[in-house]
Order: sequence, then structure tokens, then C-alpha cells
Amino acid sequence: MKMKHFFGKPDGGEWRVTAQTVLCGEAIAHMPYIATSYDAPLHPPGWRFSGVSSHLRYTTNDERGRLNQNPGILGRAAATCAALIPIRKNEAWWSMAQDERRAIYARSVHLEIGLDYLPEIARQLFHSRDAGEPFDFLTWFEFPPEATDRFDDLVGRLRATEEWQYVDREIDIRLTRINEEEAEE
Amino acid sequence: MKMKHFFGKPDGGEWRVTAQTVLCGEAIAHMPYIATSYDAPLHPPGWRFSGVSSHLRYTTNDERGRLNQNPGILGRAAATCAALIPIRKNEAWWSMAQDERRAIYARSVHLEIGLDYLPEIARQLFHSRDAGEPFDFLTWFEFPPEATDRFDDLVGRLRATEEWQYVDREIDIRLTRINEEEAEE
Repeated sequence: MKMKHFFGKPDGGEWRVTAQTVLCGEAIAHMPYIATSYDAPLHPPGWRFSGVSSHLRYTTNDERGRLNQNPGILGRAAATCAALIPIRKNEAWWSMAQDERRAIYARSVHLEIGLDYLPEIARQLFHSRDAGEPFDFLTWFEFPPEATDRFDDLVGRLRATEEWQYVDREIDIRLTRINEEEAEE
Repeated sequence: MKMKHFFGKPDGGEWRVTAQTVLCGEAIAHMPYIATSYDAPLHPPGWRFSGVSSHLRYTTNDERGRLNQNPGILGRAAATCAALIPIRKNEAWWSMAQDERRAIYARSVHLEIGLDYLPEIARQLFHSRDAGEPFDFLTWFEFPPEATDRFDDLVGRLRATEEWQYVDREIDIRLTRINEEEAEE
């Protein structure tokens, strides 16, 4: 279980922040760059959020099969856009039993919404809640610039679900990858 | 989500270690005392394992109702015995989808085994896996001395289940509470 760190930095990241929107809850400081790393030797000036890519919490084996038929691949050269969306859910959500949360997840067709945009919009979920972090999840998406409208559609559909009624803090950070020429300037 | 810390200490804990048994996997250093705290300002000489009392991972709402009919209460004066059992499950377990893990949990009658010993043997589960800890869970039990045989029976039944075939590291640390007179000596 390696913890991945996301750093908001005043300079020198892999990704440039193009927009930062508070959907609900407390804001975080705006930083113009984001870097990611599995190592966190020093806390840079700025913020750090961390999470682990953990086991499946609601996905059934059948659903995993459907996801893997057409997987979204991270790190594609054409996917120069990304989004980091830290999310927290409220106590009403976490105090529910597993079957109650699974039922809301299913009614919200959360998995099916994601499937509609595969493989163009690749996604990775990092779990933060059990690490004592301020957010419960860090969701990471990568997509080509021409998929930006479809990405807006994806997150809009998720935010309209029953499941999202339990989200009490959400920040949408849009990013573009810094190319090597630019980084060398 | 407050993280609770369990400290193995050379002296000065709330609990005296009476036995430490490695069931499987790598051992940990034997320390004669254990202390617990929600704060971890300094790492003491010895070891520290940490976890959070988190949301329900497999328990349904119906099952929670059965647990709450006859709950085990922690901190009872008569419950002078305790056990700290750190557990890790293997990759075969964690790579399964939610429904596959839930099915093994159900076939192993894990919940029902615990119910058989309520309210005499009280139990609390701390999750460590997503915090990058060496164990996935820290299980904590409290019971009166006369329930020791029944506690052995409880853990013996759990260890014989299909679910326990996925446990690849387990250490059983038995404890007795240090009374105030003794602590003042």
C-alpha cells in the first residue's frame, strides 16, 4: 500500500492549474502548480494531500469485468488534461452500513456513468479517509483536450446523483500537463 | 477520523503483556507493556501501530441491528483482560471485488461467531491498511478473566474459517490491566 502524494506548489510541478472551483465546503489555497510523488520527504510550501490506491469498496466482480473490457489508461501522451477532485462525504454517509451505501451507489449508477466515458477519460481513485486526511478521496482523471466537454458532462452527471447529496466538501482542480520545452524555460 | 495508537513500551503502559504469540508471518519485538493513545507526539522506545475506527466494510444494516441488541461495552471495570491482535491479509484477499470478499466473510460466519460471545467479550476494530501501516487491522478485545477460555474458543473458531486462509500475518498479544495501586508502586 504505497501512499501517493499530491502537492500544490508555487512553482515547479508537472501540471499547471488552469481552474480551481469549490463545489461545496471549505476552500484550499490556490497553488499554480501540482506535482505528484510516492515519496514525501519534505513538505513543500503549499499543500499536500495523500491517498492510497486501495481495494474495491463497492465494485462487484461482474462490474470489474465490465470496467476492464475497455480500461482507461493513465499516462497517455495525448491526455494532456487532468483533474484532481478531492472529495469528502458527510457523517450520514459513513454511518450507514455497507449494504445501505452500496444501494445508493447502485441507484446513482455511479459505475455506469464512468463506463460511458471509457476509455477516453481515465480515472484513478485514491483513498484518504483511513489515513486521517482532510478529504476522504482524491479522484484523478486524465483526458485529451478535446474531451473537456465530455469530462464536464461526466462530473455534472455524478454531481446530480443521490450519492452526491452526501458529499459535503468538493474541490475541482483542472490541470494541463507542462511539456518538456516549457519546463526547461 | 481520529487515529488511535498502540504503543509497545519497555515500561509504563496501561496494560501488561502476559503472552505474545506469532500465529503467522513476521514477529514484532516483545515489549512488556502496552499503552494506547489518540495522540502520538513522540515515538517511544518500542513499537507503535495505529489505526482508525472506521465505517462498516461488510456488515449490513440488519446485521448491525443484531450486534446492537447486545453490544459489548469497552472499559468495564471487570474486564481486566484484553487482547491486541494485529492482522494482515494477503494480496489474494485484497485483489478480490467487494462481493467476493463479502461472500467469504458470510460463509465464514464471521459476524455470527462474534455474536456468540457478546456482550461478555467486547471488541473494537481499527483499520490500518489505508494508512500505510504494516498490518491491515488492529483488533482489540476486552473481557473478564473468567472468560479467557471462551475468548480462546472465539479466536480459535475464527482462525479455522475460510476467511482466515487469507491472513498472512497475525500476532496475538494478551494483556492484563495494570491497577492503580500497582501503577503507583
